[in-house]
Amino acid sequence: MASTARPERSAPSAPSAERSFDASLSADEFKALFRGHPGGVAVITADAGEGPVALTATSVSSVSAEPPLLIFSISSQSSASETLSRAETIVVHLLDADDLSLAQTGATSGIDRFADHHWSRLVTGEPVYHGVRAWVRCAVIERMDAGGSTVVAAHALQSSIERDGSGEALVYHNRTWHRLGDHSAI
Amino acid sequence: MASTARPERSAPSAPSAERSFDASLSADEFKALFRGHPGGVAVITADAGEGPVALTATSVSSVSAEPPLLIFSISSQSSASETLSRAETIVVHLLDADDLSLAQTGATSGIDRFADHHWSRLVTGEPVYHGVRAWVRCAVIERMDAGGSTVVAAHALQSSIERDGSGEALVYHNRTWHRLGDHSAI
Repeated sequence: MASTARPERSAPSAPSAERSFDASLSADEFKALFRGHPGGVAVITADAGEGPVALTATSVSSVSAEPPLLIFSISSQSSASETLSRAETIVVHLLDADDLSLAQTGATSGIDRFADHHWSRLVTGEPVYHGVRAWVRCAVIERMDAGGSTVVAAHALQSSIERDGSGEALVYHNRTWHRLGDHSAI
Repeated sequence: MASTARPERSAPSAPSAERSFDASLSADEFKALFRGHPGGVAVITADAGEGPVALTATSVSSVSAEPPLLIFSISSQSSASETLSRAETIVVHLLDADDLSLAQTGATSGIDRFADHHWSRLVTGEPVYHGVRAWVRCAVIERMDAGGSTVVAAHALQSSIERDGSGEALVYHNRTWHRLGDHSAI
C-alpha cells in the first residue's frame, strides 16, 4: 500500500525486533499469505515541522476503547515515514468508497499528495483532509521497531464523523479496491 | 470481535500505555469511529501448556516482509488472552468466506471452540484448524501493553496456503460479515 522508496531514504539499522530463527518464511511466501488478507483503508497525515505528509495504510486497527487506542505500521520505505517517526500528533482518516481518490493519492509515489484534495490545518496544526468519512486526531504514545517498519500506538484525542454508516465501506484486497454494501453482505 | 469477558478473567493493572490527556475520546465515540472501519478476519490459536485456545481477530496485519513480521492485538477480556499472553508460538489462520463458521466459533463465548471443527497439532505442538484458506505459525517476539489490550508482534516461521485467490475474501464490518469478489470490486 505504501509508496515505493525514495532514493534519499535509508533503512533503520539494527531493528530491535530482528532475531534469527531456524525456520523463517521468505519475503515472497509472506507476501503471498497477506495478499489474500483484506484490510480497511486509512490515510494518515502529520507535520513534524517540515511540511505536511500523508500516506495510505491498511494496517490501522483499534486496540482498546477505554483508553481509546489504535495501532498501525509504517514501512521505512514510505516517503512519509521520517515525519511519522517524529510527529507527536497525527490524524488518521478512516475512508469509505467515496474517498477512493484520496486513498489512491496516499498510495502514489512522487506526487504532491496535497495538491488535488481539499485540506486545511486543525487549530493544533495537523493537516486534515476535508470530506472524508471520518478522521481522528491522535497523540503518539509508543513506537516499536519491527524489521524495516515501525509499529505506532496512538491515543485518540478528537474526532469527526462525516458519514456514519451512510456510505459504502472501502477495502483493499489482492491489489484491488472493493466496496462493501448490501451486495457483499453474507 | 473477541468474546465477551469470562468471570474469572481480571484486567491487567497499570497498563504501560496509559497516560492522561486534556482531551480524549469517550469509549462510545471511539467505537463509533471503528464500527465503520472494515477488517480482514483471522483466528489465532495457541497452547501454552494448559490446552488449546482460539479467538477471532480482525486486527491482524502484516508489518514487514523481510523479516516476515505481523502484528495483532488481543483484549484482556478475551478468554484466550491469558494463554496468548504467555505462548511463545502461535498459529494465525487467515480466513476467507468459506471459513465463516470457524470465524463465528472463534468469536462466540462459553463454547468449546475445538468441538465442531477439524483440527490437529503441528509437530511443534500448536493447534491448527484444517481446511482454512491459509495459516502461518509464528514466534512471538514482542508484546506491548496498551490499555486493556496487548499488542503482539510475531515472526512468521512456517505457513500453508490451501486456497490462493480461489476463494472469496472475508471481511467484518459494522457487525456484519461480507464476502469480496467480482461483485464488490471497484
